[in-house]
Amino acid sequence: MDRIGIAGAGAWGTALALVLARAGRRVALWAYEREVAAAINTGHENPLYLPGIALDPAIRATTELAEIGRAELLLLVTPAQHLRGIAAALRPHLAQGTPVLIGAKGIEQHTGALLSEAAAASLSGAPLAVLSGPSFALEVARGLPTAVTIAARDQALGSRLVQTIGSARLRPYLTDDLVGVQIGGAIKNVIAIACGIVAGRRLGHNTRAALITRGLAEMARLGLAMGARAETFMGLSGLGDLTLTCNDTQSRNFSLGIALGEGRRLKDVLAERRSVAEGVTTAISVVGLAGRLGVEMPISAAVHAVLHEGAAIDATIEALLARPFKSEGLAGVSV
Amino acid sequence: MDRIGIAGAGAWGTALALVLARAGRRVALWAYEREVAAAINTGHENPLYLPGIALDPAIRATTELAEIGRAELLLLVTPAQHLRGIAAALRPHLAQGTPVLIGAKGIEQHTGALLSEAAAASLSGAPLAVLSGPSFALEVARGLPTAVTIAARDQALGSRLVQTIGSARLRPYLTDDLVGVQIGGAIKNVIAIACGIVAGRRLGHNTRAALITRGLAEMARLGLAMGARAETFMGLSGLGDLTLTCNDTQSRNFSLGIALGEGRRLKDVLAERRSVAEGVTTAISVVGLAGRLGVEMPISAAVHAVLHEGAAIDATIEALLARPFKSEGLAGVSV
Repeated sequence: MDRIGIAGAGAWGTALALVLARAGRRVALWAYEREVAAAINTGHENPLYLPGIALDPAIRATTELAEIGRAELLLLVTPAQHLRGIAAALRPHLAQGTPVLIGAKGIEQHTGALLSEAAAASLSGAPLAVLSGPSFALEVARGLPTAVTIAARDQALGSRLVQTIGSARLRPYLTDDLVGVQIGGAIKNVIAIACGIVAGRRLGHNTRAALITRGLAEMARLGLAMGARAETFMGLSGLGDLTLTCNDTQSRNFSLGIALGEGRRLKDVLAERRSVAEGVTTAISVVGLAGRLGVEMPISAAVHAVLHEGAAIDATIEALLARPFKSEGLAGVSV
Repeated sequence: MDRIGIAGAGAWGTALALVLARAGRRVALWAYEREVAAAINTGHENPLYLPGIALDPAIRATTELAEIGRAELLLLVTPAQHLRGIAAALRPHLAQGTPVLIGAKGIEQHTGALLSEAAAASLSGAPLAVLSGPSFALEVARGLPTAVTIAARDQALGSRLVQTIGSARLRPYLTDDLVGVQIGGAIKNVIAIACGIVAGRRLGHNTRAALITRGLAEMARLGLAMGARAETFMGLSGLGDLTLTCNDTQSRNFSLGIALGEGRRLKDVLAERRSVAEGVTTAISVVGLAGRLGVEMPISAAVHAVLHEGAAIDATIEALLARPFKSEGLAGVSV
């Protein structure tokens, strides 16, 4: 897999392009915005989404999907809500059997679909895999050590992806639990908003640690109801990504939560951001999924209420903290 | 349980004294240092260990163990390595059947004993329970919301302790897994030193998240080998306390690791500190336990090597990060 196409030139898509170019792959990177593609091709930087990082001049940016379709491996790193449409637009350009690696994290808002399901609907028959785990884009771009998860049902494909993506500084580990990995990557953004709100309210680190603990439990409850394995939530794509995202303002979701906790309004926070905080839409999908599956997800419900129903933050936090743990550990989950 | 004796006037013992005094209990607090007892009794502050917090004037500090022995509930919140000896010294003063709640976290260095075992050896027959979970003392003292774990084999005792310790701001949850709760509370300090070293070396948050993930797995492996339940490590006293301790410089262990990662020498760091970083001695006990039980604990071994064997930090980190994950999740643990 030498020619790599990447759809999405946000921070993560750009960081992956850089890592792959450094490893000698030929990388074509599709950007939605013309100015992003131009800046990458001429200035070898992505000042909008990954400022301050010198990109490999070999990375070729484009705004034409056809130009990334002629790849031996396609990475989908778009905002979650655009993934289905972009995959559909890519379909005519892809060779039969081109493997597709999903690097986006989220759940489709109107369908409740996992991104692997959305991609499969647009690219029927394409071999699919998912890349997740604790990986701030900027740190990966800087070459700081990072361990990630690759989920693939076809282990031969998984092994090829590990060879293609992996390096001494970016180490992928393989699993076949596509559902668990995607649920972890999606729900952690919602929990991170909750943790941010609590941080913005200056409620302390003890509270945040309790929220993270309960958040992992509700993530795992949803995942198990959807067929995931419990152990996945103990791994990089579960607790690893959760502890990362809930503890550092490099996370757009955590920092959005902080702004809300400090009393700013959601539409004002969103208006001044170019990047997507996936948890804002994922909260909607999750509440829908949890309702349909009969899974209790009080933190996600609280985040949804604050974001989308105008719930008062203090009363919502108070009610959340007053909820009893049913038991220690993964309440309601048989591990 | 109205009269409470607390052995240990460090940050956590003092914070617990304050919480209990606020709830109207009569609290006697034993301090090792005369100046600490004097400051609490006259200035109603503990400037050495919990500076800036106004203590309830009803808290009576003492340097005489006999004065806390006449309690209906005894809390042991001493440094881990002193717990057995202080418990033995308290024994003649305790009424038969006085319940003992252990708030210290660590493993005895020379015996490898859990603190409940060390306490039981000194106080044979006393009903024992353990208090753990993500609880920075300063935040508890400030009344910030905190959820903790109480572990007791006797559930009636556990329920009484929940009633005695608990409040709207300090919410205890009950388990009977004494081993799991104590292993979590001990090992997290060792993992926090590792995370601090990596932070001091500026290796980034992705690396730290991977260490936390692997750290939880090795903590659980040891716990399961000692008879703990896997779910305990998913709870407040496992992952909750781990994510807290590995992400904030309020943790003495994390901040000690940072100093080491920045190139300072252990003895210099320890020399300027009054408080104990439990992970420094726990690392010794853990490596011994892991060896006897045949449990693989590479992070703990690496921390031990850096702290006590003069291992070079960079080479040790490099070797640690190069280790393959055997699989995602709780490698080697059946959940």
